[in-house]
Amino acid sequence: MRTRKVNMIISLVTIMGGMALVVACGQRNATTVIEGDAAEQVYIAPGEYDEFYAFLSGGFSGQITVYGLPSGRLLREVPVFSQYPENGYGYSEESKPMFNTSYGFVPWDDSHHIELSQQNGEFDGRWLFVNGNNTPRIARVDLSTFETVEILEIPDVAGLHCAPFITENSEYLVSGTRFSIPIPQKDVPIDTYKENFKGLINYVSLDQDHGTMELAFQIEMPGFNYDLARNGKAVSHGWSFLTTYNSEQAHSLLEVNASQKDKDLMAIINWKKAEEYVAAGKFTERPTSYYHNLMDESTGIAHSQEMKMTRILKPEDCPEMVYFIPVPKSPHGCDVDPSGEYIVGNGKLSADMSVYSFSKIMKAIEEKNFDGEIEGIPVINYDAGLHGILQKPGLGPLHTEFDERGNAYTTFFISSEVVKWNVDNLEILDREATFYSPGHLVIPGGETRKPEGKYLVAMNKITKDRYLPTGPELAHSAQLFDISGDKMKLLLDFPTKGEPHYAQAIRADKVKPNSKKFYNIEENAHPYATLGESKTKVVREGDEVHVYMTAMRSHLAPDNIEGFKVGDKVFFHVTNLEQDWDVPHGFAIQGATNAELLVMPGQTKTLLWEPKKVGVYAFYCTDFCSALHQEMSGYARVSAKGADVPLKWGLNETLRENQEQAEKFYEQLENKSK
Amino acid sequence: MRTRKVNMIISLVTIMGGMALVVACGQRNATTVIEGDAAEQVYIAPGEYDEFYAFLSGGFSGQITVYGLPSGRLLREVPVFSQYPENGYGYSEESKPMFNTSYGFVPWDDSHHIELSQQNGEFDGRWLFVNGNNTPRIARVDLSTFETVEILEIPDVAGLHCAPFITENSEYLVSGTRFSIPIPQKDVPIDTYKENFKGLINYVSLDQDHGTMELAFQIEMPGFNYDLARNGKAVSHGWSFLTTYNSEQAHSLLEVNASQKDKDLMAIINWKKAEEYVAAGKFTERPTSYYHNLMDESTGIAHSQEMKMTRILKPEDCPEMVYFIPVPKSPHGCDVDPSGEYIVGNGKLSADMSVYSFSKIMKAIEEKNFDGEIEGIPVINYDAGLHGILQKPGLGPLHTEFDERGNAYTTFFISSEVVKWNVDNLEILDREATFYSPGHLVIPGGETRKPEGKYLVAMNKITKDRYLPTGPELAHSAQLFDISGDKMKLLLDFPTKGEPHYAQAIRADKVKPNSKKFYNIEENAHPYATLGESKTKVVREGDEVHVYMTAMRSHLAPDNIEGFKVGDKVFFHVTNLEQDWDVPHGFAIQGATNAELLVMPGQTKTLLWEPKKVGVYAFYCTDFCSALHQEMSGYARVSAKGADVPLKWGLNETLRENQEQAEKFYEQLENKSK
Repeated sequence: MRTRKVNMIISLVTIMGGMALVVACGQRNATTVIEGDAAEQVYIAPGEYDEFYAFLSGGFSGQITVYGLPSGRLLREVPVFSQYPENGYGYSEESKPMFNTSYGFVPWDDSHHIELSQQNGEFDGRWLFVNGNNTPRIARVDLSTFETVEILEIPDVAGLHCAPFITENSEYLVSGTRFSIPIPQKDVPIDTYKENFKGLINYVSLDQDHGTMELAFQIEMPGFNYDLARNGKAVSHGWSFLTTYNSEQAHSLLEVNASQKDKDLMAIINWKKAEEYVAAGKFTERPTSYYHNLMDESTGIAHSQEMKMTRILKPEDCPEMVYFIPVPKSPHGCDVDPSGEYIVGNGKLSADMSVYSFSKIMKAIEEKNFDGEIEGIPVINYDAGLHGILQKPGLGPLHTEFDERGNAYTTFFISSEVVKWNVDNLEILDREATFYSPGHLVIPGGETRKPEGKYLVAMNKITKDRYLPTGPELAHSAQLFDISGDKMKLLLDFPTKGEPHYAQAIRADKVKPNSKKFYNIEENAHPYATLGESKTKVVREGDEVHVYMTAMRSHLAPDNIEGFKVGDKVFFHVTNLEQDWDVPHGFAIQGATNAELLVMPGQTKTLLWEPKKVGVYAFYCTDFCSALHQEMSGYARVSAKGADVPLKWGLNETLRENQEQAEKFYEQLENKSK
Repeated sequence: MRTRKVNMIISLVTIMGGMALVVACGQRNATTVIEGDAAEQVYIAPGEYDEFYAFLSGGFSGQITVYGLPSGRLLREVPVFSQYPENGYGYSEESKPMFNTSYGFVPWDDSHHIELSQQNGEFDGRWLFVNGNNTPRIARVDLSTFETVEILEIPDVAGLHCAPFITENSEYLVSGTRFSIPIPQKDVPIDTYKENFKGLINYVSLDQDHGTMELAFQIEMPGFNYDLARNGKAVSHGWSFLTTYNSEQAHSLLEVNASQKDKDLMAIINWKKAEEYVAAGKFTERPTSYYHNLMDESTGIAHSQEMKMTRILKPEDCPEMVYFIPVPKSPHGCDVDPSGEYIVGNGKLSADMSVYSFSKIMKAIEEKNFDGEIEGIPVINYDAGLHGILQKPGLGPLHTEFDERGNAYTTFFISSEVVKWNVDNLEILDREATFYSPGHLVIPGGETRKPEGKYLVAMNKITKDRYLPTGPELAHSAQLFDISGDKMKLLLDFPTKGEPHYAQAIRADKVKPNSKKFYNIEENAHPYATLGESKTKVVREGDEVHVYMTAMRSHLAPDNIEGFKVGDKVFFHVTNLEQDWDVPHGFAIQGATNAELLVMPGQTKTLLWEPKKVGVYAFYCTDFCSALHQEMSGYARVSAKGADVPLKWGLNETLRENQEQAEKFYEQLENKSK
């Protein structure tokens, strides 16, 4: 019964689209001839380095991952939108505010698109931006520390899939709503979609020195689904291009109802013009609520600020700011070539691919060559803006990147392949099978003005038999191709973490020299930092107890503490006194209902412990830091709520009741050692 | 100032130990000559499979990771003791009970030692066990699904580092307390350690058919730190061996105070004898509290049970059950060779290594060749039990594994190397540098009766310059050696996830054939499973609303729901109707304060959503499942608490108010398609 119904729906869709839309890739024979030197090409000998960093979004992990290319080795997972027990991110007191939103503490998101900061259309290696799709947010990662240092919520949008696309001098991050909603939110029937639901395209400005984000303005748009975007570069600088699907404005069974029209739309925004309108005060201020969470890099503490106002630009008030142009059938990717002249609008249900010309679009605008308008937005004549059609390239085109030799590379989800074609003459040059069903692809700099067309990574959506099986849940898979020659050459399959959607890759020498090795303890401005063992202490403030603790190979100080009471809120502020590369210390205490702290050299981090039962509880360093790491432990004594046990703390078997005694102890210790 | 104090303490330790105990490895020159075919040896061509699964503990990540060998590719991270936003483990209603402990919900732990199930001293590929160090627990992972299916808390211990070592027919998992504590817990001064603090050695029995764990008995021991263990095999079957450090019984500054004695101890347990005492009722029942969390594999729901009693065996009541033998200076690893005859007791602060003979130990016991006793436990004469001394093997010996050719391989943390030696004649055969400071090492089957001495992986504790840098926080690093020849050969560096301590590796063909591809939906016994779209419904029970939802390419049903109220507790029970390999669906709704669900084919999982504001909220599938994945979304309407909006739900634009209407709709839909 069930199967028949499902088949019926699938057949509806199949008829409509004229092609099989369900995953048709699965059972292709996996044997591939690999030419002889692939092993040598991807092998990075012990002690040598990869040539590129690849930053992959984590998809439903909410994080990002850092891979080396060509080895395909996972160098690090950087927590961004999701709690990360591995290092305490989202559990430590310093990092918890990063998860504040207008909905409360949201410890997960779905990260899709990586954007590296650019200057003059080239990666500058300073910051990385990534979107949170579910509860709309954009995060910034500092590439000197590989830490998430900022998260900005975007108000009044739903599904921030179309984000955070950067302009070529890092002026703005552009994003669009994936799902339109009532703006402002209100209790209306869902079938009033066409009257009540709207979209927003958002411009977040970036501080050029510090990278900090600010919601500059939002443009109110028809209630479509804005899916992906790119900004212009060089000749098209100052413009943004965003694909839509569901211009049908369906609100249910979108697989059928949002696939009715032969063409959807690309939105074309003149953001320089929008800036002028903002400067001229042509915006509406609308009350709203969204959170801006920023890590103070001198203390390592994140602070949240609720923002309560947003500036809305309406196309009807702002002529020559927004246009549409038709794009064949449910476009997904929207990619601009290195010259800025060509824009690829991939209709994923289309049998061919439309490539637009920026100069022709400009000419059509100038000549008002429009086919009517939608909610006051002119629709540019399709043919007038077209560079040409790439005929029968494959099935289910999704995304395109470029090399520096005038070629484009497009992934085809349904026919499971990457196709190389010439942007200028629209000639197909090569095609290689992928295993299976690629989503995005990445070429280092492949969306910038300076691609490095040496490698291409296809990020596949279906894995099945590519690796040793791991039960029903499999890693997603990436495939590395050598694209330096005329023909693409498959080199390597490597499994990935989470569900990588997009990635960007950058030559290692643009990031490596700036990579911080440890935090300078002299610059540690954390209010509970303890800059030396003699400064360690335990301070009670009502039911709150603050432990000023230090970590140094191979002991925690103090390592014996008495006087905690059931019902206390104990804050362990652990400062790692090391000033050497790769000597983290960890901290955990039995029964704590959060995660460990992993404290980098020079940092202070705080774990909250709420003891519930009397007894003596062990704590220890969780990072194997020296030959005597196993000895790096201590005890905390918990007495009953009303007990008469004073606070005492110490190291080396003697407990002290006040700071004066403690400092004397350290003085004696020092004198003895002279 | 600070530096001088620290130096003083370090110098104390240095004098004591007669060697540099701080990490001395860091700045070794990393250039290594790699012989020509290393690239070919580790390269797994696209479509081909690795030869071995390696299961690495995650250390402070609390999880385990699965790598392929020889490629060093991360095939999957399996969440065990820590919340895992990536697939909703620890956030979904089904999995939350896995984190229940006597301390409450504990969402993190520190996992150290992997043990694969064995029969006749060989891996059987059925289950994997791993310990939680901080809040003492042992977990079981089912190797047909790679899912954590059981977590058992161990009561009255602190730091379950020494765990969960398996006996050769999977009769028991043996573990010991790392930190001694008052038993039962009580409020006593820490400096009453010697009077009040005790250790426990724990035996968890395994159901031979289902793998389920039960705490069989605990042996009360002197208040030392029990660090690592192995069980006897073949000739030594029925015995366990556990190293101790801190036989000094220090409770502060252990790096100095627990490194005073020239020899610590190995505990030797006759567990067959212990079984006899249990059968004879020679135990004390002691009230306690610990949690047993078990996943029902037919529903996918974990259930918790609080256990309230434990059986204690005391050595003074149970003669011939427990012995000690001295081991030079702060032993760490404790490893038994494939024959079961030799036991390596690695004193990490000792300049040589003591190798014991099981038959000599038995003889010494028989002849009562004891040097006194400790708390009623006979101490076997050191020389009487000794097979011999491995002279000057390196600095900081930690762990030893074996090949099938009579060789042992030991890691040296301080001198950063792996040393190969002959177990029988104690001759050193080879040494290879590691980069840097290896902890454990693993050879496939290298602790069983059937090692496969082809590869060795050293798990290094210090990474520094081995990969492209990633800020202050670096991945830990593993190194793969070819050990099939006379000399070891370094093949590959690969970064690892978390902080792997121990690992076990198994030939792929022992696991791969049993790997489940999806869950049979006919066997789905989840009480909220929805076995077909016509069964979807939304049911209100007071403030609780249950959504019986299905997922199928490419829609969720229902996909429009109205009638939720602010203050409701909405349970989305999502059943993935797919019955094909590698077609998970995900589920997320904007503003939810937990993580997504990732639902494998045939499974049902539940997300709790507590809407706080009126409006219309989007939900969608988080796994890119088909070419129309972007269309797999829907809306939930939330009205004010007292609003008069009835519950309605539907698919394809029409909402229904009751199940009868809904079923009619599906019937019509089906008739139309005939």
